[in-house]
Amino acid sequence: MHTTVGIIGGGPAGLLLARLLHRAGIDCVVLESRDRAYVEQRQRAGILEQATVDALREAGAARRLDAEGLVHDGIELRWDGRAHRIDFPTLADGRRVWVYAQTEVVKDLIALQLADGAPLYFGARVTAVEGADTDRPTVHYTHEGRDAELTCDYVVGCDGFHGVTRTAVPADVRRTHERVYPYSWLGILADVPPSCDELIYAHSPRGFALHSMRSPEVSRLYLQVPNGTDPADWPETRIWDELDARFAVEGDWKLRRGPITSRSVLPMRSSVTEPMRYGRVLLAGDAAHIVPPTGAKGLNLAAADVVVLARALVRQQRTGSADLLDAYSDTCLRRVWRAEHFSYFMTTTLHTDPEQSGFDTRLQISQLDRIATSPNAAAELAQNYAGLPLP
Amino acid sequence: MHTTVGIIGGGPAGLLLARLLHRAGIDCVVLESRDRAYVEQRQRAGILEQATVDALREAGAARRLDAEGLVHDGIELRWDGRAHRIDFPTLADGRRVWVYAQTEVVKDLIALQLADGAPLYFGARVTAVEGADTDRPTVHYTHEGRDAELTCDYVVGCDGFHGVTRTAVPADVRRTHERVYPYSWLGILADVPPSCDELIYAHSPRGFALHSMRSPEVSRLYLQVPNGTDPADWPETRIWDELDARFAVEGDWKLRRGPITSRSVLPMRSSVTEPMRYGRVLLAGDAAHIVPPTGAKGLNLAAADVVVLARALVRQQRTGSADLLDAYSDTCLRRVWRAEHFSYFMTTTLHTDPEQSGFDTRLQISQLDRIATSPNAAAELAQNYAGLPLP
Repeated sequence: MHTTVGIIGGGPAGLLLARLLHRAGIDCVVLESRDRAYVEQRQRAGILEQATVDALREAGAARRLDAEGLVHDGIELRWDGRAHRIDFPTLADGRRVWVYAQTEVVKDLIALQLADGAPLYFGARVTAVEGADTDRPTVHYTHEGRDAELTCDYVVGCDGFHGVTRTAVPADVRRTHERVYPYSWLGILADVPPSCDELIYAHSPRGFALHSMRSPEVSRLYLQVPNGTDPADWPETRIWDELDARFAVEGDWKLRRGPITSRSVLPMRSSVTEPMRYGRVLLAGDAAHIVPPTGAKGLNLAAADVVVLARALVRQQRTGSADLLDAYSDTCLRRVWRAEHFSYFMTTTLHTDPEQSGFDTRLQISQLDRIATSPNAAAELAQNYAGLPLP
Repeated sequence: MHTTVGIIGGGPAGLLLARLLHRAGIDCVVLESRDRAYVEQRQRAGILEQATVDALREAGAARRLDAEGLVHDGIELRWDGRAHRIDFPTLADGRRVWVYAQTEVVKDLIALQLADGAPLYFGARVTAVEGADTDRPTVHYTHEGRDAELTCDYVVGCDGFHGVTRTAVPADVRRTHERVYPYSWLGILADVPPSCDELIYAHSPRGFALHSMRSPEVSRLYLQVPNGTDPADWPETRIWDELDARFAVEGDWKLRRGPITSRSVLPMRSSVTEPMRYGRVLLAGDAAHIVPPTGAKGLNLAAADVVVLARALVRQQRTGSADLLDAYSDTCLRRVWRAEHFSYFMTTTLHTDPEQSGFDTRLQISQLDRIATSPNAAAELAQNYAGLPLP
């Protein structure tokens, strides 16, 4: 089998790229190792930047998002018993964010892809990507018990940090920069209406907490926990009591409790692989970079990568010019490092490092006080959070 | 001997306080352990914020500063072979800084104090401060070979981190927060006109470098060096070669070399002692807080402390109300922690930690890129550097 663009990985990056290419008349094939049910149910991010929403609209995949997504014009910060709202419209040039779960984005994209009859294979496990530096890179994979080959003009790896595509870039060319944080998140889903209209990011001497949501009926909450935490050590009451303690604020705000339907521990780590292109193999999304979830940047960076990449591939196909493809890695990496820095800033400003001194805590408080009093500091947070315009 | 305000320490904090009180008709005595020549010659800071200049003017001590000080409207940042200027007037609400050495500030203040016949004793070594929680705190000191006592209504400790006054605050009340940085500065004075009109702060994979100046004829330069560095290991040529490498930038800028007249190693450390008041003993300047020199905040924080304190003492003397004195510690500490955070930000953004990873370096570069492209990020730096208005 041959295709113009072989896309490895049917998560949001691969699926959005397939949609953008399909609508531009460029043929592509998506190979996803898992089955459809798994892909549609794995819990991931839930905050979409303006640029991501724009891309989904451009891909014709925003109908349900526009109907059901919750538009948010701000977030609340809490620290030291105080609360401060960051207002996006006034601070971030009118940009805003949408609460709409990654699972829903993936469902929408899969349904469109299949409705169009565009090639999307589940259970297609890629074993090797060969010939990155030739004109015809080849993807080897197994599907329905048989070995198969897909030859491509270009291969795009959207198969995450542990995917095969990253390793198609020779080790002597590839540089991976990493940082592991000394804490994790315990994330829960609860069948209870959110206790707030907008997300709450809370700094507390007991550790960070985040109140997010999935819908008007489902709350999504997170607690900073030590690495290696077993969710089984956190019965419902302990979780709610700890959330209460960390969100504590002057006034009569109250956290609603409800049945917890899911709990899991998420590691916190940053990683960037450079370059994001080698010959005719390109990396996008988690295959190239990981951010800790604090800045809600992971899904949005993936969407930005594939928007830049779709533009570059369309230009190459239509004009023969590879200039945008040649610039792809550098173009994306500038945005990636900005997001890595912002995610690091949000993470280290709001979490309590187990080795943190009283001095470090006072610096965090001073930073948060500054955000509450300096329009420039607040705007810097708002613009990075709501997302910078695409290049 | 009795006085209203006993001031321990004849550095810029103690001397400026004495001037402000003297002009308000409040009697005070300054006790300085060193001799005049030593105090007038020890090399310290050289950048005065707008608020510090305003205070010196208010104290009648700005005649030479206004004639000889160099007004600076910006600084230059260098990283990754690039340069970017931070413009204070447009970014920091018209505020600016003055290059005028601390040694000169001290000479001006001493001359005024002595010309007025106001009490200022050199070689007066304080051995103990007693009775902080009484109405008559007492300073014990030795002077000209004799033990002496100074009883006061208030005692102000401007005697630095290693001074006696800090210890007059009982250990169970006093909290000191500290951070030691894993590098030092090698500072030099050179008899050569500065190679730039404004200060240059340079990030380099070889370590931080700073080009400052003392006058149109004297350059002041700094190199990040490992802790424990012996200045004797840095002959002139090595210093200039290393400065050349760290300031390297696209274009034809050239560093002028000249005879090095002084070289010394400065440790980098942050420290805050809370509270800054206990009973009738008040701490100001380095006695209460230390910042690394990167943000040029040390002398300016000291000046801010004594301006706030002079106001509070004048109010207490004139109206009997101690409300401003009661608020002194909290008022100052808000500014202190802001400056500690800014100094930490400048230090960690520009220096290379010996344990720094490639990831950490990319974050620094991304932060500096952001300052060069985001007016909010640039304004946040400019406003903190040029100095926030006094409360």
